[in-house]
Amino acid sequence: MILRDAFYGIRRFDDFQASLGVARNILTKRLARLVDAGILRKKMYQEHPPRYEYRLTEKGRDLVPILTALLAWGDKWETADEPPVELIHTTCDSVMHAEAVCSVCGEGIDAFNLRIDPVPEIVVERVLRAGSG
Amino acid sequence: MILRDAFYGIRRFDDFQASLGVARNILTKRLARLVDAGILRKKMYQEHPPRYEYRLTEKGRDLVPILTALLAWGDKWETADEPPVELIHTTCDSVMHAEAVCSVCGEGIDAFNLRIDPVPEIVVERVLRAGSG
Repeated sequence: MILRDAFYGIRRFDDFQASLGVARNILTKRLARLVDAGILRKKMYQEHPPRYEYRLTEKGRDLVPILTALLAWGDKWETADEPPVELIHTTCDSVMHAEAVCSVCGEGIDAFNLRIDPVPEIVVERVLRAGSG
Repeated sequence: MILRDAFYGIRRFDDFQASLGVARNILTKRLARLVDAGILRKKMYQEHPPRYEYRLTEKGRDLVPILTALLAWGDKWETADEPPVELIHTTCDSVMHAEAVCSVCGEGIDAFNLRIDPVPEIVVERVLRAGSG
């Protein structure tokens, strides 16, 4: 939820707190964890008293494909009571969802055209045995 | 980890157990949770005694874009000690990583060309204030 707000443009402790309604000590810990993980960075915006903003790093912005994939999956399978959220791609100004494509050929990725290497040996053994059994 | 193995083609309780090395009662609970969530389904493959396989549903297979986005992010930012895993797209037979594109125009999605609607009111208010302050 902190990340969602960071993507919305929220940067200041009090604004995260107002938006998320979470206890200040918990928010402090969570922000520190995201800073430690290199996903947010602290930047001083006022000297007296010292106050910091929390901004997304490149590593944090790179979470976009994960977040949009989660949203696309949630929209398809878990809409239940959640209010719909629309993603707008400003490049084409369309309401859209994220799709996963191959970085080499640009075609779609799904469970049927994907292979993972190396497959752990124990898995190879078990899958082969199950297939022949 | 259960899901990773399911994508590898593992289906049987004993094979998940051998691959994951997790206690049987914990594995039972986790598999049941994935079945309840509609991500795996149980299918009887032997009647006496009754034995079941756990297969990915369409909802489960639709997790591929999330998993590949996590892998791509991890490869870029968190490689540390993990052995490299390669994803092969069998459509083009290339080692690749997943990229997120717009379902409408097919161009890439990133933190700079994405807008989320509606933005919660409290967020609008705080972002506007911070921007003008």
